[in-house]
Amino acid sequence: MAGKPSASADKAKRAAALPPAAIPDAKSGANPVDLAIICGYGQFPAEVAAHAAAAGHRPYLIGIEGEAGDEISAFAHERMAWGQLGRLFRRLDELGIRRVAFAGGVHRRPEFRDFKLDWGGVKALPRALAFMLGGDNTVLSGTIKLFETRGIEVVGAHQIAPGLLAPSGRIGALAPGTKDIAGIRQAFLACKALGAFDIGQAAVAEGGRVVAVEGLEGTDEMLLRIARLRAVGKLSRKGTNGVLVKAMKPGQDMRADLPAIGPKTVENVAAAGLAGVALEAGHTLILERQVTTAAANRLKVFLHGIRPQEFA
Amino acid sequence: MAGKPSASADKAKRAAALPPAAIPDAKSGANPVDLAIICGYGQFPAEVAAHAAAAGHRPYLIGIEGEAGDEISAFAHERMAWGQLGRLFRRLDELGIRRVAFAGGVHRRPEFRDFKLDWGGVKALPRALAFMLGGDNTVLSGTIKLFETRGIEVVGAHQIAPGLLAPSGRIGALAPGTKDIAGIRQAFLACKALGAFDIGQAAVAEGGRVVAVEGLEGTDEMLLRIARLRAVGKLSRKGTNGVLVKAMKPGQDMRADLPAIGPKTVENVAAAGLAGVALEAGHTLILERQVTTAAANRLKVFLHGIRPQEFA
Repeated sequence: MAGKPSASADKAKRAAALPPAAIPDAKSGANPVDLAIICGYGQFPAEVAAHAAAAGHRPYLIGIEGEAGDEISAFAHERMAWGQLGRLFRRLDELGIRRVAFAGGVHRRPEFRDFKLDWGGVKALPRALAFMLGGDNTVLSGTIKLFETRGIEVVGAHQIAPGLLAPSGRIGALAPGTKDIAGIRQAFLACKALGAFDIGQAAVAEGGRVVAVEGLEGTDEMLLRIARLRAVGKLSRKGTNGVLVKAMKPGQDMRADLPAIGPKTVENVAAAGLAGVALEAGHTLILERQVTTAAANRLKVFLHGIRPQEFA
Repeated sequence: MAGKPSASADKAKRAAALPPAAIPDAKSGANPVDLAIICGYGQFPAEVAAHAAAAGHRPYLIGIEGEAGDEISAFAHERMAWGQLGRLFRRLDELGIRRVAFAGGVHRRPEFRDFKLDWGGVKALPRALAFMLGGDNTVLSGTIKLFETRGIEVVGAHQIAPGLLAPSGRIGALAPGTKDIAGIRQAFLACKALGAFDIGQAAVAEGGRVVAVEGLEGTDEMLLRIARLRAVGKLSRKGTNGVLVKAMKPGQDMRADLPAIGPKTVENVAAAGLAGVALEAGHTLILERQVTTAAANRLKVFLHGIRPQEFA
C-alpha cells in the first residue's frame, strides 16, 4: 500500500510515495500510467487491467479498502478508503491520468462511519455517499458527473477490454434446445420489463414460466435459491431444466455494473440443475473466458449469446 | 379420514363411508354441505371454511394428502391423493356439491410417482398434472375448465369469504411515511410490470429502489433474503427502512392464489428491518386479521391497503 500523501507535502515527497511503476519517467517524458481502474472485489478488476494492458493501455489500480483483493497487486496500484476523494483526485492529477474505469462490485454498502472523509470527500459528499454501489443508474450518472466536472473521462470495461464482452451465438460446446429458447425469451423479457426499476440483470425461467428474478442479492444467491427450490420439490428434480439469462438493464450506462458471469456462475448453474446460460451479446461480460467455457463444457451447461432483436 | 369408495360399491355403502356431517339429511331433504374447499397446507383453508360457514355456506373440505394439516378436521372433510380426480368428482356428485374453491398452497410439486391415478385422473391427466401449483394462470384456467365442463362452478375465497380481503387505508396502528409511500409505489409498479410473466405478487423497495422481487420461493423466503442482505451490510443497518408490497398479478383470475399475509409475514417483515407492508386493497388476503394486526402493532410495522388508481 502506498503512503498517504498530505496536502502540505512537497511535490518530491509525494512522488517518492508513489509505487515504482507509477513514477513518471523524467528521461523519456513518457507517462507510465494513463488509465485508473477503481477496483471492487473479485478477480474482475485485475482481469480488466490485464485486458486493458494487452490492448496497449497502462492501468493504475486504485483498490477500495476492504473490497479489492490481492489480485490488484500484480499491477501498479494503491488502496484508498471510502470518501478519500480529495486524495483520489490529487493522485490522478499527479499521475496525469485523465481516464477512469470502475471494475468489480462492493460487498458492503458503506456506513457513514466508514468514510474517511478528506476535504475533497466532504465537498463531494452528496454524490459520493452512494459511490459505486451499483444497481442505481442515478447514482452512477452522478458519480460520472463528479469526475467529468474535473476533466476526467469515465470509460467502461467494454471500451478498454472489449474482449470480455459476450459474443452472439454458441459460446461453449452445447447449444440451447427449443424449450430452452422459449425459456430464454421469457427470462430475457422479464429482465427488460424490470429495467425501469433499476433491477433485473438476471432471471431464471423453467417449465414455461419465470421462477426467479435477481434483486440486490446477486446471481449466485439467486442460483442457490433455485437449487433449494429443486431440493424441496418446488421445481422438478428430473433431469436438467431451465435457463439463466443475464441481460443489461435497458438504458443502462455501460460504464459500470455490466452483468457478468465467470466459472463460479457456471458451477452454480449446474448445481441448480439448469440447462444453460444465455447472455445478452455485447452487453454482458464473460470473466476468465477459457476457464468459464471449459467448466460449462465439463458440466454440460450451454453458454449462448443472444441479441435483443431476436426477441423484439 | 373417510374410507375410499370403489366404483363397484353400492350407494348405501358409499354413503356410510361419508363423515357424519356430510350425510344428507333424508328427513329434511336439506343438503348439509353445498361447497367443497380443496385444501393445501396451512391455516388458510380452515380460515376460509370458517368465514364461509359464518356467511351461511356449508363447506366440505378435501385435503390434499401430504399438504393439508389437522386444521381441516374441524369441518366435514376427507383427504385425497394427487390424481384421484375420479374419486373427487364422484364424491362431489354424491354430496350434490356444485361449487368448489381452492385454498392454501402446496409445498411440494408432485412428481409423476405421487399421482395415485384413478380413471378420472387418467382422462384428465394433461390438465391435472400441474393442478393447483399456483403461479401459472394457464394451468389455473385449465383446471377451472376441468371442473366447469362437469357443471361445477369454481369460486374464489374472495367470493365465499370476502371478510379476508384487505381494505384500503390504514389497517393497523401505524401509517406509512412519505418515504414509505415512494417505496410502495416503486414496488407496486414492479409487481405489475412482472405480471405478464406470471410472477411478481410481492416486491421489496428500500432506499429509493426495488431490491427484491418474489419468484417461486415465496414471500417468507424473500424476506429472509432481505434480512441476510441487511446482516452483511448490503442494505443499511440503521433503523427500519423499506416496504413489502403484495399485489395481484394484472389479469389474474381471483379464484386461486391470491397474495396473502398472516402473522408470520409480519414477523418476517419486522425481522427483515422493514417499516411496513402495503397490500392491494380488495385483491389480497389478510389471514387471522386480529392476530396479524396485533403482531404488526406490537412490532411497530405498518399495514396499509392501497388502491391501484393511486399509482396510475
